[in-house]
Amino acid sequence: MKIAVLGAAQTKFGELWDKSLGDLLAESQLAALADAGIKPIQIDAIFTGNMCAGLFENQLNLGGMASEILNINVESTVVEGACASGGLALRAGIRAIESGQAKIVLVNGVEKMTDISCEGGSGECVASGLMAAASQETEYFHGATFPALNAMLARLYMETYGLTREQLACVSVQNHANGFLNPHAHLRKKITIDHVINAQVIADPLTMLDCSPVSDGAASIVLCSEQIAENFTQNPVFIIGSGQASDTLQLCARDDLLSWKATQLAAKQAYGQAGVGPRNIDLAEIHDGFSIVQILALEDLGFFEKGTAGKAIEAGEISLNSKLSINPSGGLKSKGHPVGATGVGQAVEIVQQLRSNCGERQVNNAQVGLTHNAGGCGTTVVVHIFKKDE
Amino acid sequence: MKIAVLGAAQTKFGELWDKSLGDLLAESQLAALADAGIKPIQIDAIFTGNMCAGLFENQLNLGGMASEILNINVESTVVEGACASGGLALRAGIRAIESGQAKIVLVNGVEKMTDISCEGGSGECVASGLMAAASQETEYFHGATFPALNAMLARLYMETYGLTREQLACVSVQNHANGFLNPHAHLRKKITIDHVINAQVIADPLTMLDCSPVSDGAASIVLCSEQIAENFTQNPVFIIGSGQASDTLQLCARDDLLSWKATQLAAKQAYGQAGVGPRNIDLAEIHDGFSIVQILALEDLGFFEKGTAGKAIEAGEISLNSKLSINPSGGLKSKGHPVGATGVGQAVEIVQQLRSNCGERQVNNAQVGLTHNAGGCGTTVVVHIFKKDE
Repeated sequence: MKIAVLGAAQTKFGELWDKSLGDLLAESQLAALADAGIKPIQIDAIFTGNMCAGLFENQLNLGGMASEILNINVESTVVEGACASGGLALRAGIRAIESGQAKIVLVNGVEKMTDISCEGGSGECVASGLMAAASQETEYFHGATFPALNAMLARLYMETYGLTREQLACVSVQNHANGFLNPHAHLRKKITIDHVINAQVIADPLTMLDCSPVSDGAASIVLCSEQIAENFTQNPVFIIGSGQASDTLQLCARDDLLSWKATQLAAKQAYGQAGVGPRNIDLAEIHDGFSIVQILALEDLGFFEKGTAGKAIEAGEISLNSKLSINPSGGLKSKGHPVGATGVGQAVEIVQQLRSNCGERQVNNAQVGLTHNAGGCGTTVVVHIFKKDE
Repeated sequence: MKIAVLGAAQTKFGELWDKSLGDLLAESQLAALADAGIKPIQIDAIFTGNMCAGLFENQLNLGGMASEILNINVESTVVEGACASGGLALRAGIRAIESGQAKIVLVNGVEKMTDISCEGGSGECVASGLMAAASQETEYFHGATFPALNAMLARLYMETYGLTREQLACVSVQNHANGFLNPHAHLRKKITIDHVINAQVIADPLTMLDCSPVSDGAASIVLCSEQIAENFTQNPVFIIGSGQASDTLQLCARDDLLSWKATQLAAKQAYGQAGVGPRNIDLAEIHDGFSIVQILALEDLGFFEKGTAGKAIEAGEISLNSKLSINPSGGLKSKGHPVGATGVGQAVEIVQQLRSNCGERQVNNAQVGLTHNAGGCGTTVVVHIFKKDE
């Protein structure tokens, strides 16, 4: 498989009080088209990842909004898999090209999480709205929130594998160190292990600084086949692997809470298509919605043995321009987490890194990059692998 | 294009107070697999159309629910385009097979609209929740509902083309005559023109009996390539055309309110793929969310000249076993409209008709059938064409 990325762009992620959902979508769509050097009329299909617009703004049918912005009438579809919605949109775009039914495809991820218009009900509180990604019957109904579910995973992991609180804190410290260098990041500040451990407790052992923020933002990517790319650019970035898998919606139905089967299966599929393994990856954007999630993902993606990722992070093994640069963008924790936009935002970062466009946070000699996007507690997982043209 | 339908099934549509969203999904998935004669482990991918589970039950990430029910870990994605969500799921399933990435695909549509759990906010009222399919900024904010938007279209059409109130009422009368014969239908009762005209006014000129009901239900279809189908069945039904297009989310941005460009473009694409035209269609399931919508659709699909569909319906030209049998199932009006399930439910009806499994409502010598599924006021439209194996 070889799908070319013609254009990639994103808005700043953050609390963007003066921008609506439509403003964000327009900004990222137009920037990606400009980056690709194409006009709206050249697009055959649009796929948009979004999770919360229905919950927070009572706005669905965003396919029509995306195409209306560009004044075109092509097929335009929303895909949803909670926080993995962006990754699913990328995969739907790839499929449209692979099927031979579309030549040039626009992929969006968008989310407006601040300044929400619904009052009362599920829209009252962002945290309860986000629990739509978990099971209502066996989790939300009993009062669980995502920080609570992830805190239980963190506690179990610490007891099982001897992960220390300091090692867990290193995840956020490292992501903020990278995000500090990223002008698109929501939270551009360096933090320390002490900051993380002594921040307000959200769900023990997780503090505020173990949790990704509530952000607004959008990201867009223009895809086409290898043959068509030749008309537009001499050295595109290619997507060479795509994998997706599912695990149970309910955590209580899992055999093993500390291995995310969906990550393992999606990675296996993506590595297989790409003909590469974890050792060939130079940089990766990992779904660090909570610090513990990044630890689990690093292991389930094959970068570290189960139970060892915490020590590796503490030893600096995933720092920027170490052997494996993880979350050069700052990750969800520092770059921000506009949930439906995140998966496409990860891809934009990898594309910009492989184009050597990332300034202070540039990964040296970046050749092969990976994105890992997860919805719910590992319920829906998408993995993509990108490669620089040679 | 030739995609085989291996299995097709649906739940009864209606007010199913004793069935949850998960119950409905389980029932239709298992029935479709049984109809196909396959086991869950043979499925490569699942696509589920849903609009309202986030709004009404704070439940998203249904991909994980769908795969958990079957105890499999394959990719499982939700697609959304308001009331066209089911049709989009069918199209996504076709794409997965056409791309060569999946061999056997399960497609679902599901919606739970009664007994909703969200109180207050957007979930307070089904009618306001459904307005998520329209523009929040230029329509819902100003107090419009879907009956109101469609009533304005109906009034404009009546003034422009001289459609009479009686002709408009014939749409519902005809659909109920068919639905009376369908054991899966929500509202199995015959009605008269007087019933329609004298029913409670919802938004003048539309009365209660011009509007489809609020229903629960699910429908599922198993797809595969033509080659693989040979291992399972001697005479499958094939999908021979698929089209999708978009129009503006906001009605105020349209040049012409009485021609739905998205229907015209989606139909053109589907007819082109299938190598057939409107004259070759024996039966069709049309999106009659409101009576006026069926009039517009019959014209935009090419069955009648603009402005003439009302007279044709009055003359019995689309009655069961006339030249063109429209909505043999009873349509959204009588069969029911569980919004995300509707598009797949339409496909189930066409498949069962082409298999000659429809008892009293069977269309004689049914060879080629069409489905037309619309989200919003023609914002997202999907058209599929089905053919009996010869």
